Amino acid sequence: MQRINLLVGGPEVLWPAQLKTAPTAIPGGWLGIDRGSLRLLKMGIVPQIAIGDFDSLHHTELHQLEKKVPDIRYSIPEKDDTDTELGLKTALFDLQADQVAIYGATGGRLDHFLVNLFMVLEPRFKPYCERVMLLDRQNSIRFYRPGAHVIQKEPDKRYLAFVPLTAVTGLTLPDEKYRLEQADSVDPISWASNEFIGTTGHFSFTSGVVAVIQSSDLNGQKADAPV
Amino acid sequence: MQRINLLVGGPEVLWPAQLKTAPTAIPGGWLGIDRGSLRLLKMGIVPQIAIGDFDSLHHTELHQLEKKVPDIRYSIPEKDDTDTELGLKTALFDLQADQVAIYGATGGRLDHFLVNLFMVLEPRFKPYCERVMLLDRQNSIRFYRPGAHVIQKEPDKRYLAFVPLTAVTGLTLPDEKYRLEQADSVDPISWASNEFIGTTGHFSFTSGVVAVIQSSDLNGQKADAPV
Repeated sequence: MQRINLLVGGPEVLWPAQLKTAPTAIPGGWLGIDRGSLRLLKMGIVPQIAIGDFDSLHHTELHQLEKKVPDIRYSIPEKDDTDTELGLKTALFDLQADQVAIYGATGGRLDHFLVNLFMVLEPRFKPYCERVMLLDRQNSIRFYRPGAHVIQKEPDKRYLAFVPLTAVTGLTLPDEKYRLEQADSVDPISWASNEFIGTTGHFSFTSGVVAVIQSSDLNGQKADAPV
Repeated sequence: MQRINLLVGGPEVLWPAQLKTAPTAIPGGWLGIDRGSLRLLKMGIVPQIAIGDFDSLHHTELHQLEKKVPDIRYSIPEKDDTDTELGLKTALFDLQADQVAIYGATGGRLDHFLVNLFMVLEPRFKPYCERVMLLDRQNSIRFYRPGAHVIQKEPDKRYLAFVPLTAVTGLTLPDEKYRLEQADSVDPISWASNEFIGTTGHFSFTSGVVAVIQSSDLNGQKADAPV
């Protein structure tokens, strides 16, 4: 299993606890996306590749990066690919990653978050979407292609959501708290606030791409639930 | 113009500045969604309707709500509609709102945010999606149906994104910084980091639903940009 982690520039306050407290215990190599590269260095992690235009970095910061990171790939601003797309491309196709965990991809500008959420739908990435996950403090997002799937409950998460990102047919949830039987949806929809019964769940569908989100309330409480 | 504001239970730290500093200056009536109702009361705003199951409220809080809010609509947990969907339904169909501004709909659980983002695609809401907007500290999201549209730059926002939420045909951006000519997209995609030239922009498309997001970096800087 070749795992590659990407650190993107989203707000640190939204990072998962492990990235804050024990980043070096996270398995796999790291790619730093723009300022994320510098944050990795500060945590004692040397990214194997740094990708970005780095135009927000002070020249002393860029110098530090150039001294320590073996492979720096300068992206061209106003380009077609975002730096995160370049990072995903590098992880999947150059480094042949089986698993790509993306940190720092949520929060802040929602147009950016939606780039990160929707990029797995691009034809070049779609065949590999099951290798990609987005991780933050309260959420893990994984992506699935048609077929029958088994998912594991994450111990720190309570809620389970099935989110067709495209037209989806035949979505069946046979053993979750709220069940579905051969449901079709034309437009994206978030079927939220479902839950595991036990520690594993099954689901299947026949066409489209489904995101599965495991999430938790911030203090283990429902107090701030937005719906 | 009948404007209705909804306050949903998302993190207060993500509220737009005006909601924090001068909430009573926001035009229009208010609906409180679950705990959002209580937050409105604390800001000196009595919602005309409070909607929710209120199961996270202490009984003294619920009592306070019942004493002050003229119309409380108890939702049934484990129901089909989320409380925010009930709020949007009430605003559009009971109150005949021309404009529905939703606050507190972002942040925290991403399955919840995606419910709020995608709900305008439901057949019952889609004809009215242009009346709906989601507002937070760094983002405004508006929704558009096919046709030719004019949009105004918000003074506190720098970036402009066009986000097809469904299959979209013929998307044309004639006078923005980055232009598009008759672009089609099958799956959702976020064309982010565009900008206005001047203070108005035009765009058109022939089928689908497009979200337009105006956004800003947190300190007017690009330092934390996630892509």
